[in-house]
Amino acid sequence: MRKYCALLLAASFIAVASIAQTSAILGFSPAAAEAQLTAEKKFDANLSAKNIDLFIKELSAVPHHVGSPGDEADAKYILNKFKSWGYDAAIETFYVLFPTPVTRLLEMTGTTKFTAALKEPALKEDATSGQQSTQLPVYNCWSPDGDVTAELVFVNYGVPADYEKLARMGIDVKGRIVIAKYGQSWRGIKPKVAQEHGAIGCIIYSDPKDDGYFQGDVYPKGPSRPATGAQRGSVMDMPIYPGDPLTPGIGATKDAKRLDRKEATNLLKIPVIPISYADALPLLESLEGPVVPDPWKGALPITYHAGPSKNKIHLKLAFDWQVRPINNVIAKLKGTQFPEEWVIRGNHHDAWVNGAADPLSGQAAMLEEARSVGEMMKTGWKPKRTIVYCAWDAEEPGLMGSTEWVEFHADELQQKAVLYINSDGNGRGFLDAGGSQALEPAFTEIAKAVTDPETNVTVFDRKRSYDIVSAGSAKAKKELLAAKTFTLPALGSGSDFSPFAQHIGIPSLNLGFGGEDDGGEYHSIYDSYDLYKRFKDPTFEYGVVLAKTAGRITLRFADAESLPFDFRNLQTTLSKYTSEVIALADEMRENTSVENQLIKEKYYTIADKVNDPLLPPVAKDEVPFLNFGALQNSVAVLEKAAEGLHAIMGNNTLTAKKKNELNIQLYKAEQVLLTKDGLPRRGWYRHAIYAPGFFTGYGVKTLPGIREALEQRNWKEAQEQIEIAAAAITNLSKYLDAAGVAAK
Amino acid sequence: MRKYCALLLAASFIAVASIAQTSAILGFSPAAAEAQLTAEKKFDANLSAKNIDLFIKELSAVPHHVGSPGDEADAKYILNKFKSWGYDAAIETFYVLFPTPVTRLLEMTGTTKFTAALKEPALKEDATSGQQSTQLPVYNCWSPDGDVTAELVFVNYGVPADYEKLARMGIDVKGRIVIAKYGQSWRGIKPKVAQEHGAIGCIIYSDPKDDGYFQGDVYPKGPSRPATGAQRGSVMDMPIYPGDPLTPGIGATKDAKRLDRKEATNLLKIPVIPISYADALPLLESLEGPVVPDPWKGALPITYHAGPSKNKIHLKLAFDWQVRPINNVIAKLKGTQFPEEWVIRGNHHDAWVNGAADPLSGQAAMLEEARSVGEMMKTGWKPKRTIVYCAWDAEEPGLMGSTEWVEFHADELQQKAVLYINSDGNGRGFLDAGGSQALEPAFTEIAKAVTDPETNVTVFDRKRSYDIVSAGSAKAKKELLAAKTFTLPALGSGSDFSPFAQHIGIPSLNLGFGGEDDGGEYHSIYDSYDLYKRFKDPTFEYGVVLAKTAGRITLRFADAESLPFDFRNLQTTLSKYTSEVIALADEMRENTSVENQLIKEKYYTIADKVNDPLLPPVAKDEVPFLNFGALQNSVAVLEKAAEGLHAIMGNNTLTAKKKNELNIQLYKAEQVLLTKDGLPRRGWYRHAIYAPGFFTGYGVKTLPGIREALEQRNWKEAQEQIEIAAAAITNLSKYLDAAGVAAK
Repeated sequence: MRKYCALLLAASFIAVASIAQTSAILGFSPAAAEAQLTAEKKFDANLSAKNIDLFIKELSAVPHHVGSPGDEADAKYILNKFKSWGYDAAIETFYVLFPTPVTRLLEMTGTTKFTAALKEPALKEDATSGQQSTQLPVYNCWSPDGDVTAELVFVNYGVPADYEKLARMGIDVKGRIVIAKYGQSWRGIKPKVAQEHGAIGCIIYSDPKDDGYFQGDVYPKGPSRPATGAQRGSVMDMPIYPGDPLTPGIGATKDAKRLDRKEATNLLKIPVIPISYADALPLLESLEGPVVPDPWKGALPITYHAGPSKNKIHLKLAFDWQVRPINNVIAKLKGTQFPEEWVIRGNHHDAWVNGAADPLSGQAAMLEEARSVGEMMKTGWKPKRTIVYCAWDAEEPGLMGSTEWVEFHADELQQKAVLYINSDGNGRGFLDAGGSQALEPAFTEIAKAVTDPETNVTVFDRKRSYDIVSAGSAKAKKELLAAKTFTLPALGSGSDFSPFAQHIGIPSLNLGFGGEDDGGEYHSIYDSYDLYKRFKDPTFEYGVVLAKTAGRITLRFADAESLPFDFRNLQTTLSKYTSEVIALADEMRENTSVENQLIKEKYYTIADKVNDPLLPPVAKDEVPFLNFGALQNSVAVLEKAAEGLHAIMGNNTLTAKKKNELNIQLYKAEQVLLTKDGLPRRGWYRHAIYAPGFFTGYGVKTLPGIREALEQRNWKEAQEQIEIAAAAITNLSKYLDAAGVAAK
Repeated sequence: MRKYCALLLAASFIAVASIAQTSAILGFSPAAAEAQLTAEKKFDANLSAKNIDLFIKELSAVPHHVGSPGDEADAKYILNKFKSWGYDAAIETFYVLFPTPVTRLLEMTGTTKFTAALKEPALKEDATSGQQSTQLPVYNCWSPDGDVTAELVFVNYGVPADYEKLARMGIDVKGRIVIAKYGQSWRGIKPKVAQEHGAIGCIIYSDPKDDGYFQGDVYPKGPSRPATGAQRGSVMDMPIYPGDPLTPGIGATKDAKRLDRKEATNLLKIPVIPISYADALPLLESLEGPVVPDPWKGALPITYHAGPSKNKIHLKLAFDWQVRPINNVIAKLKGTQFPEEWVIRGNHHDAWVNGAADPLSGQAAMLEEARSVGEMMKTGWKPKRTIVYCAWDAEEPGLMGSTEWVEFHADELQQKAVLYINSDGNGRGFLDAGGSQALEPAFTEIAKAVTDPETNVTVFDRKRSYDIVSAGSAKAKKELLAAKTFTLPALGSGSDFSPFAQHIGIPSLNLGFGGEDDGGEYHSIYDSYDLYKRFKDPTFEYGVVLAKTAGRITLRFADAESLPFDFRNLQTTLSKYTSEVIALADEMRENTSVENQLIKEKYYTIADKVNDPLLPPVAKDEVPFLNFGALQNSVAVLEKAAEGLHAIMGNNTLTAKKKNELNIQLYKAEQVLLTKDGLPRRGWYRHAIYAPGFFTGYGVKTLPGIREALEQRNWKEAQEQIEIAAAAITNLSKYLDAAGVAAK
């Protein structure tokens, strides 16, 4: 029925003026393009939704967290598949710290006694949910051992602004335990900020407003998080550095030089545990003190108070702190023409429990992609460049598999890596992608070559339609209607692209499908095959679509005569980021000036409400005028360099040799944007343009040195970072100019 | 403690550059001003919070809804007070239709059986809540009799946009019963819109998100609405006409010509009942169909579905449809110099149950004001103009006491009424006022002469500080910092000013205090003295402040040598309204154009989600360019007229006789803005500038003929209404010019 509608729709579709698929492809001569398109047709034809179904089912059959028998079995399963498809595959093992819980106790003492269950019950409708003996229990990985008893305070999402509000409410978390909602920031930010404010323990819970019955019917009726569902997850301070905490910057080989755990700067000092909303309810009900602001309130049937609680909360946690082996599966297909140029495609395989969606839906699509490429090999096809498939282990605790591999092979990768293409969980819906903006034209072309199975329009058109319809204003809709290119948002963190993009400057993409697959199974025992098949991609066709899209990128970058990088798109994006940071400084200046006036002239005191009292905010230092000239100039110069290089690349008289030499320059260009010292206080992050936010975690900060210095009101550092970013961008212009000159 | 802080604050207060109270008052010569200020000091000194406490306590001792013994007793109590204070007071009785319930049944049949309690339980913490035998039960007044059984559909707030969304969700309410949340629109709009869409019954409930535990601790712990609390209220279609439905436009005297009930165009055809959230929960849980959009969801611990319900809902209602006497208490103090010029001050006295807050907190303040004026009389003071105090009956069912009085005395009032000053429920917090903008300078002066008891700054400064602090952006804050005048928003409906302002063009003000008195007692048995004293104005000092503010307006307008109307403020406001309607047309034009493109080119279809499907919106007719020139010109001309008249009024050489003649012209000026035919389809509303919204109820629409024609996409009518409003404004300019010429 659905299919029939889709076909009708396609026939009458007049929405988007997509370029019909012609034989022209970026980076290919007409003849090469024709061959490539023929190969891609074969590639598509080989892909099977049934295989994806089977891969997910088999790999999610048992819990397979880091260090578990299931984890090792999955790595071997993947290894054997790659070998059987003709790849040069091996398991590359690292040895990383990975704590699992020994003791978990959360209780309320005093007039109302309560002990948290900290347990997700089995459901008869979910076949694997009953594998309790092999499931990793509900916990936050990297919590330290701890045994604390104190009053409880509710801190909303636990981000810095929430503590400013608490201060205005006259509430201090010093010596207390905080309870924060999941959401708004990456979870690891919550205990980190709590710790900075003097809290001695942290509880994170899934409020049904954000993740539960408010969103939709709960599992097993619908896919939303049930009352007893809880979200496991890492609370490593990844914005400092990801990977094994004991081996920052180097591969965690068996005999690597390791830090003492106390020296690891990305580990917390206060105990933290995630709980379900069933466990949170009695704790929240015990809170006294003021009613919280409306945006803090969740969907539990209570009046949300800030606290402190009348009763004391007791949190006791202990972990085993074992170093465990992790198994990356690395499968290579040697390039015929440029074997020392690598197109790298990765997805992790470890999960918190069974992980059908996260990560196996992406892993299965990648395997099917690799299988189809293997089928092509059987017919004699071979890639020009080397293709490297990577099934990462230990992504969940902190991108450990990918980070250790990147750190260990950094020099080689900076020579050879053309592109890193990442995926993770996948579901039905809309194409979602981010990455290096120099890839936008090539990515757009590919997104226009893949058909969406529900609507039979291209995945580009479907995503574009969704964005246009979802835009908030007629003005925003008109702007999107006018845009013809897929905009690649910058990458933050949260999956395995981070070490490639931000540590060693490899052009990177991260992609997947979603938006029609909402659910509350994330990092719980209910992330199962049963739930996935019912709610997230029932026909597994979006696994096929991911394979088609990511596979096409892999194949085109493996075979292109001219690598389709276009730095004009990067330049346009940098120009936007530059405007943003200038506007940020201006807006902060105006806000600070007005707020300081209101504070000084006692407007807050006079406006205060007797039944909802708030202390005035604290006056802040006025925002000086910074000199953005160097940054603006560097971006202006880059425009000329990018245009110049683009003109040279379009010159049909370039010899194959010059093209090949230029290709190497192109894929290494983003490395020029790495800075010598990295970001202040977190030198592992070396990219001048992109980093995960120090206080957002997964969320990206662009021009991070400048933007975060502004946000932290460190004007001196902001000015220094302006110069550093400007220098990096200027170096890129020089580099592109030189590459162009060399190619002529 | 609080008081001490307040004094400290006042000493160090530097926020607002208020003009210190000098002996200059608008409309008074220096000598007269000095006498007036002396009188006002006496007036203030006479006011006692204890009396306000006592008035509220005594008048709220038993339920006193329309037609009840308590209602009659309160009218007599008020009458006797006025008489004892030296007023020429009498009860003026009208005879109005007022239905009370005979049968109320709401039940769910089928697999899950449930019968709604429709009852608010007594609380031991609330002394009057146990007076069950004399309480009016939970009902919506003006629901017709009905006995309907059907599936249930949830319609959010039940406004027209909600039905557009339901249509996109594929849900029709035809032949079904709807359940709507209280809020967003006046309650009467909900069954009216449901009826227009073919529903056969309507349930309105208080969701705890808007009115319950989400807001704060529920009664008796805090003042928020408990699970079993329900909101009574009128569902008369007041935007057609208020007052007795059987006597539109004429006074409902004993022998007035009455319509048959079927002929009354402001009465509903489908039965409607209000329920508590305890009663709503099982009904909402029975709903199937799609999950509703996030903004529709409330704070009950369920997944909100749109319906229809699996089970059938049975709603059976019957009423007694009695004509009952209502008792307005009218108390006059004859003016010494201009007895035929009336300054009218009113507040209703009827309540849905005990009504301590609504309306007695305002009524008590008015009584204390009148008592103080009476005390002044004892010392020989007398007003120049006649002061008329009005304690209205039957406001709750539809502004019946005031409307019938205004309709009956319309001709006399259009000759004599200088100003109508209204109040209603009152509580601690910030000055809130609306009214005719020509009163802004005089009102500002008075708001700067009254001290806020919590902060010891003026009530003007406190409100200004609150507005500035609450403004959303630095830009908005800066604009408010620059503004020096109290902005009087236009009046919609919801209290007794409506017939004065909108039917016969009397300059009107509505004022009260609030913002630190939030609660959920509205129209329930918990609107009691006990709740009021605990949560709404514990010291009754805001009753005193209301008396000071409203009393000052009364006294100044009673004694002014030159009535302080300033039509420059009206002109500025009209200029803003004109810009708004032009911007509205432009915005609608752009939105329509973009949306129609998205619909036509199938963007909505392509963007649709399989797990949350929505039909595309229906294309709308494009918005033509309307000719606003006449309106713009009329407002430009008014600027000159208002400036010219202001200059003449400032001329010290005007004789007393000329001043007196001009005064009459001034207070009648707003009548020039009445239109011959009134608004389309609701001719009772005759003001060209202000009306309650046809689809908002209480909420005002300014330039209503134009604005609503635009919103209803009736372009021809919009153009006609532009001309009608322009003509009215042009007439006002001519009128003001003539008044100025006559005065010279």
